[in-house]
Amino acid sequence: MRISLVIIMSFFGFISAAKAYQLEPKNWWVGMKHPEVQIMVRKSNIVGADISLKPYKGVSISSVQYGDSPNYAFINVRIEPDAKAGELFFEVNTHGEQEQISYPLLARQTGSAQRQGFSSKDVIYLINPDRFANGNAQNDSVEGMLEKANPTYRGGRHGGDLAGIIAHLDYFKDMGYTQLWLTPVRENNMADYSYHGYALTDFYKVDPRMGSNEEYPQLTREAAKRGIGIIMDMVLNHSGLNHWWVADKPTRDWLNFEGQFSGTSHARQTIQDPHASEFDKKQFNDGWFVPTMPDLNQRQPLLATYLIQNAIWWIEYANLSGIRVDTYSYSDKAFLANWTQRIMAEYPNFNIVGEEWSSNPAITSYWQRGKVNQDGYRSSLPSVMDFSLQEALVKALNEEESWNTGWIRVYQSIANDFLYADTNNLLIFLDNHDMSRVFTELQQSLDKTQLAMTLLLTTRGIPQIYYGTEVLLDNTPSNDHGDIRIDFPGGFKGQAQDATTARGLSKSQRLMQNHVRKLTHLRQAYPALSQGALTHFAPYSGIYSYVRSTATQHILVLLNKNQQAMKVDMNRYKETLADATTAVDVLTNEVVDVSQTVEIPKMGARLLVLKHD
Amino acid sequence: MRISLVIIMSFFGFISAAKAYQLEPKNWWVGMKHPEVQIMVRKSNIVGADISLKPYKGVSISSVQYGDSPNYAFINVRIEPDAKAGELFFEVNTHGEQEQISYPLLARQTGSAQRQGFSSKDVIYLINPDRFANGNAQNDSVEGMLEKANPTYRGGRHGGDLAGIIAHLDYFKDMGYTQLWLTPVRENNMADYSYHGYALTDFYKVDPRMGSNEEYPQLTREAAKRGIGIIMDMVLNHSGLNHWWVADKPTRDWLNFEGQFSGTSHARQTIQDPHASEFDKKQFNDGWFVPTMPDLNQRQPLLATYLIQNAIWWIEYANLSGIRVDTYSYSDKAFLANWTQRIMAEYPNFNIVGEEWSSNPAITSYWQRGKVNQDGYRSSLPSVMDFSLQEALVKALNEEESWNTGWIRVYQSIANDFLYADTNNLLIFLDNHDMSRVFTELQQSLDKTQLAMTLLLTTRGIPQIYYGTEVLLDNTPSNDHGDIRIDFPGGFKGQAQDATTARGLSKSQRLMQNHVRKLTHLRQAYPALSQGALTHFAPYSGIYSYVRSTATQHILVLLNKNQQAMKVDMNRYKETLADATTAVDVLTNEVVDVSQTVEIPKMGARLLVLKHD
Repeated sequence: MRISLVIIMSFFGFISAAKAYQLEPKNWWVGMKHPEVQIMVRKSNIVGADISLKPYKGVSISSVQYGDSPNYAFINVRIEPDAKAGELFFEVNTHGEQEQISYPLLARQTGSAQRQGFSSKDVIYLINPDRFANGNAQNDSVEGMLEKANPTYRGGRHGGDLAGIIAHLDYFKDMGYTQLWLTPVRENNMADYSYHGYALTDFYKVDPRMGSNEEYPQLTREAAKRGIGIIMDMVLNHSGLNHWWVADKPTRDWLNFEGQFSGTSHARQTIQDPHASEFDKKQFNDGWFVPTMPDLNQRQPLLATYLIQNAIWWIEYANLSGIRVDTYSYSDKAFLANWTQRIMAEYPNFNIVGEEWSSNPAITSYWQRGKVNQDGYRSSLPSVMDFSLQEALVKALNEEESWNTGWIRVYQSIANDFLYADTNNLLIFLDNHDMSRVFTELQQSLDKTQLAMTLLLTTRGIPQIYYGTEVLLDNTPSNDHGDIRIDFPGGFKGQAQDATTARGLSKSQRLMQNHVRKLTHLRQAYPALSQGALTHFAPYSGIYSYVRSTATQHILVLLNKNQQAMKVDMNRYKETLADATTAVDVLTNEVVDVSQTVEIPKMGARLLVLKHD
Repeated sequence: MRISLVIIMSFFGFISAAKAYQLEPKNWWVGMKHPEVQIMVRKSNIVGADISLKPYKGVSISSVQYGDSPNYAFINVRIEPDAKAGELFFEVNTHGEQEQISYPLLARQTGSAQRQGFSSKDVIYLINPDRFANGNAQNDSVEGMLEKANPTYRGGRHGGDLAGIIAHLDYFKDMGYTQLWLTPVRENNMADYSYHGYALTDFYKVDPRMGSNEEYPQLTREAAKRGIGIIMDMVLNHSGLNHWWVADKPTRDWLNFEGQFSGTSHARQTIQDPHASEFDKKQFNDGWFVPTMPDLNQRQPLLATYLIQNAIWWIEYANLSGIRVDTYSYSDKAFLANWTQRIMAEYPNFNIVGEEWSSNPAITSYWQRGKVNQDGYRSSLPSVMDFSLQEALVKALNEEESWNTGWIRVYQSIANDFLYADTNNLLIFLDNHDMSRVFTELQQSLDKTQLAMTLLLTTRGIPQIYYGTEVLLDNTPSNDHGDIRIDFPGGFKGQAQDATTARGLSKSQRLMQNHVRKLTHLRQAYPALSQGALTHFAPYSGIYSYVRSTATQHILVLLNKNQQAMKVDMNRYKETLADATTAVDVLTNEVVDVSQTVEIPKMGARLLVLKHD
C-alpha cells in the first residue's frame, strides 16, 4: 500500500509535499456501510489550513476539524455508495502555500463484509509471537528500534516473528488449530519489555522486528489456504509512552489524567456498581495501567473515530477473522458500545472477544451483545472470556471432592450461564499469556492436564489453547511473565526439543500432544461437540458429566477424577439415552453397552456417541 | 378462637358432630381481597358427602373437592365483599347421616391490610426460642409430646418458650431491636431434635412446649406496645414425618417422591441453569431435606392453597409484621411466585424474606420482587438474605489486605448490588442459627466483632442480629448446631451470667453490648443510616469507607482494620464533603475537622455526620 502510494505521488510530482504529511488511516475503501471516513493529517503547523478536495465523483469533504496542537487536521470525507476506487487529491493551502496530497480509495475484496468470524466451530491457538518461532534472524534487532534482541533474558526480546508463525502453519493445521490469536505485533518502540506488544507506538504499522506490513496479509493468505483464520489483538485503552502522539497531543484531552501517570484501581466493578463513587469510577477508567502506557481518552470524539477506523482498517487490510480486545472494560463504556457497534455493523458475521478479567460472570456477561442489563447498557461485543470456568476447572482438579469443592465448581460456573446472552460464544481456556500455565497449576500432572483439555474441547464455548500447552510447557516455579511466555520448543535455534517433529519430546509431552490432536479432530468430526446444546449433571462421586446434542447426534461425556476406575449407573442419563443401548467411545473407538452401567477409566474420560436404533 | 368455636357449637347443640371434624383454616375473615377460601374438612370417610351451606348473605359454596383419601373434603367458599362477620353452618350429608358444622367468619382488625412489614428502618433480632429463655417451667415437658426437656443435652429441648420471650421485651426495646424473628414455634411432635422447630406436625398450632395459640398473639400485642414487630418463620418445603397428613395423605401426590425418602441434591442453581438436566431439577426440588422431613409437593393445587391460606391466617390471626421462609428455593418455583403474590396482594406493605443460602448474588437476586430475569420468572418476594456479604465480611476481617483479599471482598460483594431490584430490602447479618457464630469465626476478637457490627448497622439493608451476638456468645470449638444455639445468658435457671442485667458479663461482653445498643440507637436517630443512599469507595490501606445520604443528612463511615490508627486524606471524599469542613463523630460525640485529614482509631471506626454550613 505504501509503495503504490509513493508511485502514484511521484507520477504526479507531489513527492516532496506528500512526504511531509502523515495520513491515517493510510487508505480507505469504497463500498463500506458507514459513508464517512475521518482522515488525520499530521503536518507541522497545518492548523487553519484551507483544505479542499479535487472533484471526485461521489466523494466530498463534510468538514475539516483542527486539534489543540497546530500540527493536526482532521478531514471528514463522505463517500457515497456509488463512488469508485481511485485516488483522492486534497489541496492544502497553508499560510498561502498550496500543496496537493493524494489518498488511495481502494476496492474491497469480494465477500469482505460477510466474512465469517471465529466461532465455537474453531479451536483458537494463542501465540506470543516473540516467543513462538524465529523465522527471520535478520529482524531480531532493527536499526531505530530501541530494544534489541536478548534471547537469554526472560524479560527481553527473543526474536520470534511473523515469518516463524508462517513457517508453522502446517503444524497448526495438523494440530487442528483453526484460528490464531497473536498477541500484538504492531510497533512497540519502547526501551524495555517491548516483546509483550501492548505498548503500541504506531497503530498502523507492524513492528519491524516482527516483520512488515506486507507480511501480515501474507500470513492471513497462507493461513487461509489451510483453513486457519487470524485474530488480531487490539489495544484501545492505552498506547506506549513513546507513541508519537504523546509528545504532540492532537488535543489537550487526548490522554487521561492530563497525560500524567495515575494508576488505575483495577476496580472494574465500578462500571456496574450502583453504589460506586465518582472518585473510583474515574480512577478505574482514567487511571493508567502502568507509567509507560498512557491511558487514552476515548471520550475525545476524534480519538474515538481514530480507534474505530483503525480496527476496520486492519480487518479490511489484513483480512482478519476476529479481534481480541485487551483490558476491555478499562476503556470508556460508551465508546466501547460505539466501537463494537460500528465494527459489527460493517461485518455482521465477524467476531470480537473482550478481555474482562473477572471470575464474576455477572460482570463479564454485562459486556456481551444481547445481554439485557439493569442499567440499560447495550453492547455489540459478541464474545467475552470465561475466566470463571478457567479458575473453577483448575481448582476442581486440584481439590478433593466435597459439597463445595472439586467438580462442583465447574458445575456452578457453567450453571451461571443464565447470565449470558450467548453461551456458545464464550472464549474458554485453561491458561493464557498472563497467567501461570495449566500444567504448572495442575502440579505437573499429565492426567489432570489431559482431563482439563478433554473438558475444554467438549464443553460449550470457543476453546482457546495457549501455545505450548499441547507439549506441557511449564513455568514451575516462577510466575514471571517471561517464564509463562517461554520459547516454543523448536521455534528457535539450538533447542533440544522440537514440538513440530516431536524430536526430543518426553513420553508425557507426546501423549499430551496426541490427546490434543485427537480431541480437536473429534471436535471437527462431531458438530454436537462444537455446536450442540449442553445438558450437564450435578457432580457425584468425583464424576462430572454432560451431553452435547444436536437433532441427530448425542454425545455423553463422562469425566472421572478418581484415582480408580468408576462404574456409573446409566439410569441417571435416561433423559439422554432414550432408546440407545450402545455407544461408541470415540476416544478409544470401543463399542460400549450403555443399557446398565458404564466404566470410566481412572483419571480419565468417556466420549460416548450414542447409537439410536 | 378455639374456645369461642366450642361455645357457639355447644349453643346450637352440634358438639358431638363438630368435634369429629377437623377444619382448616380454623376460621376465615370477611373483607379479604381474595374472595375465596378453601376449607379442608378432615373426617373419617367423608368422601362423596353432600355438603351445603346454610344460607348466609354474601357467602356461597363454589365447589367441593375430594382427595384420594376418603377422609378429606375441600369446600371452596366464596365470600363477597359485602359479607358480614358471623358463623357459617355447613350441612354435611354422608351416607344418609346429616350433620352440621359451624365455621367462624371474623371481622379483620382495623388497618390489617395496610400493616407495615419489617424494613431497613428495623433491626431484627433472631431468636431460637427453645434456647432463649424459659418463661414457663410448666411446659418444658408436655403429655402427648414425644420429646421431653433435656436441658443438658446440646441436641435436646432446653425449655425456652414464648413466655420467656415476652419476659424479655423490655430488654429488646432497650437494645434497639425492633423486630423479632423467632425460629418456628409451631408443633414439632418429633421424637428427637424437635427443638429446632422445622419439622412441623401441625401448621395451625403452637407447640405446647412453646406456649399456646393464645400466647402467640399475646406476644405480638405486648411487643407492639414497645414498637417491636414479630416475624414468623414459615416452612413451605416440608413437614415433619409425624405430621398427621403423612399417614393419611389427602391426595396420592401430596408428598414428593411418592412419600419415600430421596435426598435433595441441594443443587439450587438447577432453577436458573439453562443447561440443567431434568434428573437434577427433580432431585433438587423434589428431594427431601432429611428422612424425617417429607418434601411437600406444592404443585398439588389443594396443598398450594392450603399453604397460602396458612400463611395469611397467621398474619391475620397473630398480627405478624413479616415472614421468614425456610429453604426458599427448594419449593416449587411457580408455587412460590403464587404464594408470595397472594400474600403481597393481601398486604401490600408487608415483608417476606426468603432464605436462599447461596453466596452467588446472581442466584439470590433471582427471587427478589422486581428482578427482570432472563427466563421471565417473576417473583413477589420482597426480601432475600445476603449470604454473600456475610461470607465476605468474615473473610475480610480475618484476611490480610491484598488486591483480592480483605476489604475488597466486602466492596465486591456490595458492588454486585446491580443484580438486585431492591438493595435496601436485603436482610444482612453476621451469623444465624445455622452457622458458626461470628465471634467464633472472628477468632474471639472483640475488635473485629465490633467492626463487623459497625458495618452491619450502617450499610444498606435490613440488619439481623443473632441472639447473644451482643454478648459475644461463642461456639468454639464445635460447629454443632446445638452449640451454635446455646442458651442465652439469663434465660435459664442457674446461669452465671444474665445479659439483661449485665450480671456476670465480662468486660468484653459489656463493651460489645454497649456497642450494639449505641449503634441501633444511632440508626434510629439518623435516617440516613437506615434509609439513605449508599456510596462506597474502593478499599485502600486497610480502610473501607462509605457514605449514607439523604437529601439533608450525609454520614461518612470510615472503617479501619489496621492495628494502628490511620490518617486518611479527605480529598478522596470531596464529592461527599461538598462545603463541609467539620463533622461530628457520633460514636464519640467528638467534633472532627474534615477539611484535610481524619484519623481513624486502630481496628476502629468513625461515623462522621457532616456539618454543611
